[in-house]
Amino acid sequence: MGKVGILMGSDSDLEIMSKAAKMLEDFEIDYEMNIISAHRQPDVFIDYAKTAADRGIDVVIAGAGGAAHLPGMCAAIFPLPVIGVPIHTKALGGEDSLYSIVQMPSGIPVATVAIDGAANAAILAAKMLAIHDLDLRKKLEKYKVNLKDQVVAKDQKLTEIGYEEYLKQM
Amino acid sequence: MGKVGILMGSDSDLEIMSKAAKMLEDFEIDYEMNIISAHRQPDVFIDYAKTAADRGIDVVIAGAGGAAHLPGMCAAIFPLPVIGVPIHTKALGGEDSLYSIVQMPSGIPVATVAIDGAANAAILAAKMLAIHDLDLRKKLEKYKVNLKDQVVAKDQKLTEIGYEEYLKQM
Amino acid sequence: MGKVGILMGSDSDLEIMSKAAKMLEDFEIDYEMNIISAHRQPDVFIDYAKTAADRGIDVVIAGAGGAAHLPGMCAAIFPLPVIGVPIHTKALGGEDSLYSIVQMPSGIPVATVAIDGAANAAILAAKMLAIHDLDLRKKLEKYKVNLKDQVVAKDQKLTEIGYEEYLKQM
Amino acid sequence: MGKVGILMGSDSDLEIMSKAAKMLEDFEIDYEMNIISAHRQPDVFIDYAKTAADRGIDVVIAGAGGAAHLPGMCAAIFPLPVIGVPIHTKALGGEDSLYSIVQMPSGIPVATVAIDGAANAAILAAKMLAIHDLDLRKKLEKYKVNLKDQVVAKDQKLTEIGYEEYLKQM
Amino acid sequence: MGKVGILMGSDSDLEIMSKAAKMLEDFEIDYEMNIISAHRQPDVFIDYAKTAADRGIDVVIAGAGGAAHLPGMCAAIFPLPVIGVPIHTKALGGEDSLYSIVQMPSGIPVATVAIDGAANAAILAAKMLAIHDLDLRKKLEKYKVNLKDQVVAKDQKLTEIGYEEYLKQM
Amino acid sequence: MGKVGILMGSDSDLEIMSKAAKMLEDFEIDYEMNIISAHRQPDVFIDYAKTAADRGIDVVIAGAGGAAHLPGMCAAIFPLPVIGVPIHTKALGGEDSLYSIVQMPSGIPVATVAIDGAANAAILAAKMLAIHDLDLRKKLEKYKVNLKDQVVAKDQKLTEIGYEEYLKQM
Amino acid sequence: MGKVGILMGSDSDLEIMSKAAKMLEDFEIDYEMNIISAHRQPDVFIDYAKTAADRGIDVVIAGAGGAAHLPGMCAAIFPLPVIGVPIHTKALGGEDSLYSIVQMPSGIPVATVAIDGAANAAILAAKMLAIHDLDLRKKLEKYKVNLKDQVVAKDQKLTEIGYEEYLKQM
Amino acid sequence: MGKVGILMGSDSDLEIMSKAAKMLEDFEIDYEMNIISAHRQPDVFIDYAKTAADRGIDVVIAGAGGAAHLPGMCAAIFPLPVIGVPIHTKALGGEDSLYSIVQMPSGIPVATVAIDGAANAAILAAKMLAIHDLDLRKKLEKYKVNLKDQVVAKDQKLTEIGYEEYLKQM
Repeated sequence: MGKVGILMGSDSDLEIMSKAAKMLEDFEIDYEMNIISAHRQPDVFIDYAKTAADRGIDVVIAGAGGAAHLPGMCAAIFPLPVIGVPIHTKALGGEDSLYSIVQMPSGIPVATVAIDGAANAAILAAKMLAIHDLDLRKKLEKYKVNLKDQVVAKDQKLTEIGYEEYLKQM
Repeated sequence: MGKVGILMGSDSDLEIMSKAAKMLEDFEIDYEMNIISAHRQPDVFIDYAKTAADRGIDVVIAGAGGAAHLPGMCAAIFPLPVIGVPIHTKALGGEDSLYSIVQMPSGIPVATVAIDGAANAAILAAKMLAIHDLDLRKKLEKYKVNLKDQVVAKDQKLTEIGYEEYLKQM
Repeated sequence: MGKVGILMGSDSDLEIMSKAAKMLEDFEIDYEMNIISAHRQPDVFIDYAKTAADRGIDVVIAGAGGAAHLPGMCAAIFPLPVIGVPIHTKALGGEDSLYSIVQMPSGIPVATVAIDGAANAAILAAKMLAIHDLDLRKKLEKYKVNLKDQVVAKDQKLTEIGYEEYLKQM
Repeated sequence: MGKVGILMGSDSDLEIMSKAAKMLEDFEIDYEMNIISAHRQPDVFIDYAKTAADRGIDVVIAGAGGAAHLPGMCAAIFPLPVIGVPIHTKALGGEDSLYSIVQMPSGIPVATVAIDGAANAAILAAKMLAIHDLDLRKKLEKYKVNLKDQVVAKDQKLTEIGYEEYLKQM
Repeated sequence: MGKVGILMGSDSDLEIMSKAAKMLEDFEIDYEMNIISAHRQPDVFIDYAKTAADRGIDVVIAGAGGAAHLPGMCAAIFPLPVIGVPIHTKALGGEDSLYSIVQMPSGIPVATVAIDGAANAAILAAKMLAIHDLDLRKKLEKYKVNLKDQVVAKDQKLTEIGYEEYLKQM
Repeated sequence: MGKVGILMGSDSDLEIMSKAAKMLEDFEIDYEMNIISAHRQPDVFIDYAKTAADRGIDVVIAGAGGAAHLPGMCAAIFPLPVIGVPIHTKALGGEDSLYSIVQMPSGIPVATVAIDGAANAAILAAKMLAIHDLDLRKKLEKYKVNLKDQVVAKDQKLTEIGYEEYLKQM
Repeated sequence: MGKVGILMGSDSDLEIMSKAAKMLEDFEIDYEMNIISAHRQPDVFIDYAKTAADRGIDVVIAGAGGAAHLPGMCAAIFPLPVIGVPIHTKALGGEDSLYSIVQMPSGIPVATVAIDGAANAAILAAKMLAIHDLDLRKKLEKYKVNLKDQVVAKDQKLTEIGYEEYLKQM
Repeated sequence: MGKVGILMGSDSDLEIMSKAAKMLEDFEIDYEMNIISAHRQPDVFIDYAKTAADRGIDVVIAGAGGAAHLPGMCAAIFPLPVIGVPIHTKALGGEDSLYSIVQMPSGIPVATVAIDGAANAAILAAKMLAIHDLDLRKKLEKYKVNLKDQVVAKDQKLTEIGYEEYLKQM
């Protein structure tokens, strides 16, 4: 059974990052969630990153905004995959967060998802764990069927009631 | 033993994407490499994405430039992780490729690496496979030590010969 | 008589995309409107794109946001023109949607309009159909005269009541 | 039989715009090509745009760079579709050209293609004309098969000779 | 005595553009203000631009947003200075308007001011007219002294009451 | 004992810049705060920049938005460090302010902090003064311990009450 | 007779700025050209800006790159129009120069032209001077006719020899 | 006497960063220069940052490109000022480096200079040290006079030989 570590540097990122936790719960994947700042507690952070694999963590999901160093520094230490979630910022819309996370130098990759894409980070973690977990693969398949069914239902509703009525009901 | 599929839509991306192949070879990870275009051969592409897992592929690395749909469409079909490599473009420097790959909608993540970051995509794939492969984990550890040793050697050289001499030798 | 297919991947795009429907109604152009996701239902989507021309659809208008693959993937399959509508996004303002739609590789064009420009997409579709439809050309001409008359009326109002009064009435 | 007008404001755009001419020739579509500047010859330009439809032109392809007004001003006058080609610029990479062409106000759409995408503009024009031209639709289909065959051949070559040899031959 | 023409393509720009009118009134400079769209009324617009100088207009201030062609097209026809005001846009913040106005080709300059900088456009027009109008030069000097006095007063207030009290009074 | 000058060109920047004052107060660092515009009062500004060091000011913190010249012009005259605070702008989010402050020519550096980063500007000033002030160094160390303790407390709270309850309490 | 001052802060801008001088010579407009840095010689610069009008200068053209303060600081002091030329930069393509020049605060406009648009700056200066100089207005009219004739000649050449031959001769 | 630490993560940054060393030598300021990667040697890096102040380093200058974490992580540990130099990158021109360095969270400032601005970083370090070093202040003053004299000499040369001759001699 796989386990995921969810990291953020500040509780201002919790609203977004909790979507990763919620999604992992839906997939019944074990996780730890922590607020640890690479900038404000470098020692605590280094210790977390060094010991996470020994504590059974297989994938780390790290969210950060602005000059977002948490995911990349984690990837420099933690030996297994790190998924980075760029958090939206007021001034630059998260373009700063995205560049700070995705443009990693050779040797130290971070698996970057969309700005505020914490739910997708959890799905990506699930896909990584599913490489060796057929049960999880089935859950992912079911999730996908569910996504599809929702769109089918919306398409039928649109066909039946027309766009004017549909918009009124939104 | 894990296996990786490397995909690109055009041989103009081969120079970059071959760095992923080279890195996988260094880690002794089995891989397939194909030129398949989601835009020019949607049927071939769909077939590839649907059958890849059954052919033993655990992770797909897909590189694309401009309006880069290959990684995202692959992630929509292939049940396991897809890593996207945004290819540098002349007009917009790869910002178009990056946005087209990373900004995926909820439910369909792509693990995006840096612009032209094909070598990092391979390392990320190795990290994913290493979740259940202790041998590979050791190789990754060794690779990291090697990275570190190279920097140490450069730092010593700089200290010994000074920056003027160092620059002349570059 | 021409027919237009309006596509979107999610009902979150319906408020914008319904402006295309409204405009086509004004021109008395037949249309179908569907919610079909290239990412969540690749098979349904492929089937739609392959059979649309046979069902009499001459032009497809596809709206999408973020890593917006719907218009480009549609253009890869549907043999006639595809018009892409980049939808505004919170983080990047729709720059991501625009790049994902307009920067298509050689061989697979998408006729891209402005961010959130669904009404213009419908007018563009009408202009395409008007190549062989003199009646529609007259309607377009009338629409243009109407646009002009509105500006003339506003200019006269401004001249008559002055900008202070005009602003109060807005 | 349809006819296309290719417009550019300066012969510095000819190298790019001639790709549209070449592609139309491949599809055996009749075309006129002119250098007419909306800024330097507004009267000549207006006259062109007003009389083009009467001269049998069904679609205009207009290329322009920087503050690119040619496509939009053409769309304001010419009653049928205008396709805009944003030309790459040294300072801003064509982002200026793209915004000046695609962000048209309501009522006056320009069908915008990729930066320097003149060949795609011609294919888009062909797709518009193919709505009522089955012969042209077959040529487009053949072109698409050809695109696909080229990728298949490249993929086979890559499989046969490997990426190192392939890169040497490029 | 100089005269200024204020132009905008839509009354949605009136709130911003009226600041130019207000400023000209403060300088007692004669002006005309019109809503004329280059896209929706090319003939009316061309006529305006051709006859403006004969009607005594020395400077035109033109505001436009998105693919903003009004200032540049005016500069192509009107023989005297055209000042362009890029209007803020929801999706791209006015970056599109700015590029469409400022990046004019060689031979056809537009004097571009800041996004939404209509008041500054009027001051710039006043500075142009002041080249041959000593009275206006004195008014500009007085305006500048006034600007300075306002800052001096604010600085004194800050020194006297401190920032906490100052912020409460804002 | 060091002293800091806080400068801004307009009281519209006071809400942000007062955070620098507040932070300096927390560190018990002496400061002056002034509203002086390089554009509206060049003489007053030049005088300020020329005499500041003689009045005992060791570091200037200058905040400005848009075409932000205050920090750079100050750095051209004041002989000691100038810290620039780019102020958020409505149209371009502060990207204009950032570029205007950070991209200084060779010879005239400005120590630039984040958009709206006035509190960080004060901490940076404190770090500069702490080079020769061991007491201040201890206060900075204490501030850092405090930052760390806050994160530790948040992490514990998250572990204790879970993310759902935590979010409710925010 | 009007007179123009051409300013730049470094001789690295001379290649671009000399195009303004050349254009003014073509219009037989008197000018001074100086290398004066607002950052490196604030006193010399202030003196220049304060005395320019008394020396008979009616318009200043100021070119600058990066954090480009020269045009804006000049506009803060010189009572007549200042035209800003953003110079192309290696890192950001001149976007930094453009924002630093065009985004001026209320009260202090700079008439900004395109990146590297020094020739256009001279034409704009000529248009300002032409408000009260009928001879210059005729020269501008002649220049415009000349621009038009060049395009007409190119269009005829293209029609006569075709694009393939035309491209060979370029 | 102050001392500066110059840090870079890779010898690919040495060409730029050596300009800081050269400038410090000109000011006769003692410095250490090291290649230490926060990503490839987190332990070595942490150790460096923790012990630097005890080794007598007063200011650290850290250069980095792409997802540039070195300056920010250094600022998280080193108790005195850290100056960040964003290194130009091929794909995004250094916009990624700049955002990753300047957009630091509250509490952890980095004094950011221009892209590739290593020489300015050294001047900024000198200005910080000059707060308590009158000798260094004099050297800075002399450097400034020298900068000014160079511009004066260029201006005189331009006046004497004219721009055509000047450009030939460049």
